[in-house]
Amino acid sequence: MKNIALIGYGVVGHGVADLLSRNADIIAKRAGEPIRLKRILTARPRTDDPRQELLTLNEDDVFGDCGVSVVVECVNDLEAAYRYCRRSLLAGKHYVTSNKNLIATYGMELTELADHNGVALMFEASVAAGIPVLRPLYKCLSSNHVTEVMGIVNGTTNYILTQMKREGRSFADALKRAQELGYAETDPSADVLGFDACRKLAILLSIAFGRYVRYGDIPTEGVTTVTASDIALAERLGYSIKLIAMGKLTPSDRVYARVSPLLIPHDHLLASVEDVFNAVSISADMAGDVLFYGRGAGAAPSASSIVGDVIDIVTNGRYNDPIWREDYRPLLPVDENVGALFVRTSPSEREKLLKLFPEGTAADEGGELGFITPPGPEAELREALRTSGVQSDATWRVFF
Amino acid sequence: MKNIALIGYGVVGHGVADLLSRNADIIAKRAGEPIRLKRILTARPRTDDPRQELLTLNEDDVFGDCGVSVVVECVNDLEAAYRYCRRSLLAGKHYVTSNKNLIATYGMELTELADHNGVALMFEASVAAGIPVLRPLYKCLSSNHVTEVMGIVNGTTNYILTQMKREGRSFADALKRAQELGYAETDPSADVLGFDACRKLAILLSIAFGRYVRYGDIPTEGVTTVTASDIALAERLGYSIKLIAMGKLTPSDRVYARVSPLLIPHDHLLASVEDVFNAVSISADMAGDVLFYGRGAGAAPSASSIVGDVIDIVTNGRYNDPIWREDYRPLLPVDENVGALFVRTSPSEREKLLKLFPEGTAADEGGELGFITPPGPEAELREALRTSGVQSDATWRVFF
Repeated sequence: MKNIALIGYGVVGHGVADLLSRNADIIAKRAGEPIRLKRILTARPRTDDPRQELLTLNEDDVFGDCGVSVVVECVNDLEAAYRYCRRSLLAGKHYVTSNKNLIATYGMELTELADHNGVALMFEASVAAGIPVLRPLYKCLSSNHVTEVMGIVNGTTNYILTQMKREGRSFADALKRAQELGYAETDPSADVLGFDACRKLAILLSIAFGRYVRYGDIPTEGVTTVTASDIALAERLGYSIKLIAMGKLTPSDRVYARVSPLLIPHDHLLASVEDVFNAVSISADMAGDVLFYGRGAGAAPSASSIVGDVIDIVTNGRYNDPIWREDYRPLLPVDENVGALFVRTSPSEREKLLKLFPEGTAADEGGELGFITPPGPEAELREALRTSGVQSDATWRVFF
Repeated sequence: MKNIALIGYGVVGHGVADLLSRNADIIAKRAGEPIRLKRILTARPRTDDPRQELLTLNEDDVFGDCGVSVVVECVNDLEAAYRYCRRSLLAGKHYVTSNKNLIATYGMELTELADHNGVALMFEASVAAGIPVLRPLYKCLSSNHVTEVMGIVNGTTNYILTQMKREGRSFADALKRAQELGYAETDPSADVLGFDACRKLAILLSIAFGRYVRYGDIPTEGVTTVTASDIALAERLGYSIKLIAMGKLTPSDRVYARVSPLLIPHDHLLASVEDVFNAVSISADMAGDVLFYGRGAGAAPSASSIVGDVIDIVTNGRYNDPIWREDYRPLLPVDENVGALFVRTSPSEREKLLKLFPEGTAADEGGELGFITPPGPEAELREALRTSGVQSDATWRVFF
C-alpha cells in the first residue's frame, strides 16, 4: 500500500481522485500494490464532498505525514505550486505535477533539488495532457539526437481555428463558442495569445535538446488576429492555418524556436489535427519522424498521465533521467529563419506581388487575394514586401 | 562504463553497432556512463570488418563474460533467439531484443524467467521499430483500461497497397517494386500473408489487455488477393484499403482480434498513413484515443529503440513492469463481429444488392461495381450475400 496526497482539488484534482477509485484494480495490479489517496489539501473544502474526511486546509497534514510518499499537485498558481514543490522535495516526497508553468519556469532548479533529495519529479501531464510525449521522448528516443520538435499543443486555439475554417466564423464568435463548450476559459488570454503553447514548447525543447530553454525567450504570437478570410484564402491555396509550436537545432548547434500561426500544407499530418486534439512531431536522427496524437486537455486525460507517473514512481522508485541539466544558451534570432510568407491583400496588388515574386502563387476569394511567396530569408521577404509598397492586410508564415 | 554484447550482426545488428559509436556522446550522457560494445557473436565473421576484434563465434565469450551486463539480440531465427535469451537470463544478464517472433511465442515464459533471475527483458523494437509504442502503453497509459488497439504495423504491405492505389499497379507489380527497393524480402510471405502483423498484434494486445494473447489464435488474412480494382472502387466510395491489425475488449471482457485488409474512411487518421509508415491507435478509458506514427521498419529506427532499451536498463536497473502475467483466455470467434462489408462485383448485380440492402452504397469504376452494405453482424451479412446469389468477386471488411 502506497499513500499519496493531492494538492489542488479543481477539475484536474477531481479527475485524479476519481481515477484512483475508478481504476483502483488495474492501478494496484500495475503498481504492484494498492495506491491510496490519503489527503487532499484544498483552500476551499466543501462540507458535502464525498471525500470530505480526506480534505484538509493544513499543509502539515501533507508534508508532515511520513506515511505520504508521493505528492500530486494540480494547482494553477505558479508561486503556490513552486512552494509546494520545494517543500515536498525537501521533505523527501516524490512530486508529480501537471503544472506547465511551474516546470517551464523552475524546471531546472527543481530537478536539481529532486536529485539532491533522492526523489523523483515527474510532469508527463504538463505537455499534451493524456498523450504520452515526454516519457517517449526521454525514455524511448534517448539514443537519438533530436533535431526538430513541431506540434499543435493548445487545444483551445486549435478548436477555434477549426471552427473558423468549417463554419466561416470570426475569431470572436469561435472563441465564444469554445467558452460555451468549456474548451476556453473566461479569461482565454494564456491560450489565444500563445503563452500556454510557449510554456509547453519550452518543456519539450529542454528535454529534446538537453538544455534549458527559457520560455520567455521564445518569440510567441497568438491567433487573435487570424481572420476567417486568412483561413479561407489559405485553404484555397492548399493550406490550413494552425497555431504551431516548433523548435529546431541548426547545423551550427543553435536553437531556433517559435510559437505562431503557420500555414500547413493539406497533405501534412498536422493539417489533419482538428478540434481540441493535439499532436507533437519529433524528428530524430535514428528514429526519423515520429508523431504523437490525441486529446491534449481535459480532466481525464491529465489524470491518466498523472497517475501513470505515480505508478512509475511506485514501480521503479526514484529516478530523474539525466535531462535538463545543461545551461541555457541564447536562441537563434527569428530574423535568421528561412521560409515562405502568406500575404492577404487586395486583388489590385496581384501584379505588384507577381512582379516582386514571379514564382509566388495567388488565389482569390471573397474579393480578397491570398499570395504565397517563394521561400527565402524571412527578414528579406518582409523587407521586400515593405519597400515594394504592397498594401498587406495580414502576413503569416508558411511551413517550409 | 557498461559493457554490452551483440548477438546477430545482420542489418539491424550493424545498425545497433553503428548507433553505439555514432551517438556515443549522447548515449553516455543519458545513460550516465559510457556504453561499450564488447563482443559481437556472429555465425559469419568477416575478416575485413572494421569491428573485427569484437567478433566471435564462441557463445561463451558472451555468456561466460561477467563483465557483460546487457545482451542485445538481433537474430531472425526463433529457436536460436529463444536459446540465447534463456542462456542470457539464466546468466543474470539483461536481454534486449527486436525479435517479435520470440516475444509473441515465448514472451510469458521469458518474462517469468527474467523476473526470477532479477534481470530485465525489453523489446520495444519488436513492434513498430523506432516508434515508441510499447513503453508508452505500459508506462504512460498504465492507469487506463485499454479497450481497443488498432494499427498499421507492417510497412511492406502498406507500401504495396499505397503503390497499388497511386499507380494502379497489380499486387504482383507492387510487390516486385517493394523488393527492388529493399522494402520487401525475397520471400515476402511473412509480410504479405499478415503473419508479421499478427505477431506484433499479439504483443500489443498482451500488454494492452494484461493477458497473454497467442498469435496463432488471431484470425489472419493477408493482402495477396487485394486487387487494384478493389482499391479503386473503395477510393470512389471514400475509403482506403489498409492491412489493419486490431483487437478490442468487449463489454463482456472477451478479446476480439483480427488481422485483415479493411476499408478505412478517408477522414480517419489511419487512412493517411502511406508508404512504409506505421501507426498504432490505442483507445483507453481515461486518455481517450491516442495515436503513434512513424517509421515502423529499418535498421536505424530499430536500433533507436534497442539502444533506448539499453539506456533504460543502465539508468534504472532491473524492472519488468507487471505486464503479461495473466493466463491466456480464448478469443471471441470472428463470427460474432459486427461491421459492414464491401463487395466487388459486376454492375449487373446492383439491383440485387440494393434490394437486399436498400441502405447500401454503390459506385462504378472500370466496368465493375463496388458496394458497401450497412453495418450488421458479419456472419449474417455473409450469409445474406450467399443465399441471395450475388456473384461477388471479392469481399472485404469495412471499418465500423
